[in-house]
Amino acid sequence: MPAPDGIAVPDKQMRMTRSRPPVAPAQRPVMLAIGGDSASGKTTLAQGLVEAMGEDRCTSICVDDYHRYDREERRDLPFTPVHPDCNYIDIMEQHLQMLATGQPILKPVYDHSTGSLIRPEYVQPRQFIIIEGLFSLFSKLSRACIDISVFLDPPEEIRREWKVRRDTSNRGYTPEQVVDELDRRESESAEFIRPQRRYADIVVRFAPVAGRDDPPDTPLSAEVLLRPTIEHPPLSHVLSADNRTAMHLKIIRDNDGTPVDCLHVHGHAAPEDIQLLEKTIWTGVADRREMPSGLGSLGPGRRSEPLAMTQLLLLYHLMQEVYQG
Amino acid sequence: MPAPDGIAVPDKQMRMTRSRPPVAPAQRPVMLAIGGDSASGKTTLAQGLVEAMGEDRCTSICVDDYHRYDREERRDLPFTPVHPDCNYIDIMEQHLQMLATGQPILKPVYDHSTGSLIRPEYVQPRQFIIIEGLFSLFSKLSRACIDISVFLDPPEEIRREWKVRRDTSNRGYTPEQVVDELDRRESESAEFIRPQRRYADIVVRFAPVAGRDDPPDTPLSAEVLLRPTIEHPPLSHVLSADNRTAMHLKIIRDNDGTPVDCLHVHGHAAPEDIQLLEKTIWTGVADRREMPSGLGSLGPGRRSEPLAMTQLLLLYHLMQEVYQG
Repeated sequence: MPAPDGIAVPDKQMRMTRSRPPVAPAQRPVMLAIGGDSASGKTTLAQGLVEAMGEDRCTSICVDDYHRYDREERRDLPFTPVHPDCNYIDIMEQHLQMLATGQPILKPVYDHSTGSLIRPEYVQPRQFIIIEGLFSLFSKLSRACIDISVFLDPPEEIRREWKVRRDTSNRGYTPEQVVDELDRRESESAEFIRPQRRYADIVVRFAPVAGRDDPPDTPLSAEVLLRPTIEHPPLSHVLSADNRTAMHLKIIRDNDGTPVDCLHVHGHAAPEDIQLLEKTIWTGVADRREMPSGLGSLGPGRRSEPLAMTQLLLLYHLMQEVYQG
Repeated sequence: MPAPDGIAVPDKQMRMTRSRPPVAPAQRPVMLAIGGDSASGKTTLAQGLVEAMGEDRCTSICVDDYHRYDREERRDLPFTPVHPDCNYIDIMEQHLQMLATGQPILKPVYDHSTGSLIRPEYVQPRQFIIIEGLFSLFSKLSRACIDISVFLDPPEEIRREWKVRRDTSNRGYTPEQVVDELDRRESESAEFIRPQRRYADIVVRFAPVAGRDDPPDTPLSAEVLLRPTIEHPPLSHVLSADNRTAMHLKIIRDNDGTPVDCLHVHGHAAPEDIQLLEKTIWTGVADRREMPSGLGSLGPGRRSEPLAMTQLLLLYHLMQEVYQG
């Protein structure tokens, strides 16, 4: 923890502390962070993981609650909520360090329905903690607290659709207001949010596949980039690079030229298509507990194999971390 | 900071951390804590110190804000606010550690006028931090964060008067409600608050002197116990044990039999009586800055030499700590 002698290099201090053999392993939670722009699907993905792991041992924390200003105060400010100055990044970092070392926090609460900051909430760490929010992967110190980092990277036009739909139905805005806000945020989003993609171990893009004539209610496909920054299950033993299969795995160059494994799961994949792979992945999980059910659910009666596979990969990493410590 | 390897002994860990030579000395604030029961004068004493030091380099934090429940929720509870279970002691300890190592906190806020928990407040440490509240000296870990600890110990009948006066004028209670509450709190007060007196470096009792016929508006006398747990100014070179003087110094046995220096400043002391001592004390302060003015003020036109002397002693310790590190 960054005591006086650690102020100069708090991230390094944190890493060192976390690298020491723990005295009480149960008190060191496994932390998975989900970054991505507003309405990219972070909360939905986080909720799915909490449900799969069970609320008794998994909790999720939204770090958008670390707003410095309420909606009223923000009106006159020259920046939007996607600017770090609009958030208590330092307090977020503190709290992530607390949770990472098994300590409770008194988390601020931003009420999205009224836009005001209200009574904070006492949060006790559980065995698994999902951190989600705009600044999850923003700083070196926040990343030092995280075991597995994920960035959600939907195509921009899809994200804008999602944001309009959500903010008009849950947050009391008109469609015009949401579109204006998206435009207002664009430059700050480019400067502060999208660069976090670079630091994720796993980048997930749900999108339709260009040039395919899938029926209109086909789930979105998933493109999952697996960076060699953490140890992934040995997918290359099971999957080929053959584009014509419902799932395939290719080595590609990412935007910045770095090599990365790219897993593609098509929206038209059938449960049978992915079952073998699911089993292969789950067999690698150290405690061989039963595979969580309900993965890939898009609501009553609707399923997405790309979503199920993405969730399973993340659950695999959560379980692995417990045993690798 | 209590990382995994420190969870077993967080207070020791904290002490060690604070004992290491600081990289950035300016970032290590001097912390003075004021404990004592409800309405014993903690806030008033804290405010006097902040005014004397100046708000630019001194801030005070009330740790009664770490209430776990609001007034409504407390109605059905089997304990009162002076029970530790009614407070987030763990979060208070965290925040004290943060401040002690020069880091900001997002402090909870309890609104005494409405009895509700509201939007928390961002607090940046200054060079001097006064911590005041019911649980300031409660735990080993909280005490490990403190440089100078003070306990206010007025006679119980005076404290009850003060509490009735304050809670009826500022907190919307009737006198009967306050007296009931005092009775309800009594056993918890004895169990959790009064024992903190034992851990204070300085115990202050403002009280009338028994058997003296001072005019009715004579300020209360001060009895100041100076424990050898910190280094006090060499008062015994200047003061005698002679009871007939306005100020005297005696070695006595405290309630529990431990030896302690007892400074008595009579309410009828005149400014001339204490000036020499004030100068002697202040000369010992390392930076020899001008002695703060306005000490001992009891409001417009009213002065108390016992209060002035008490404040000066605390200011002396604050200044000393800066230079002793």
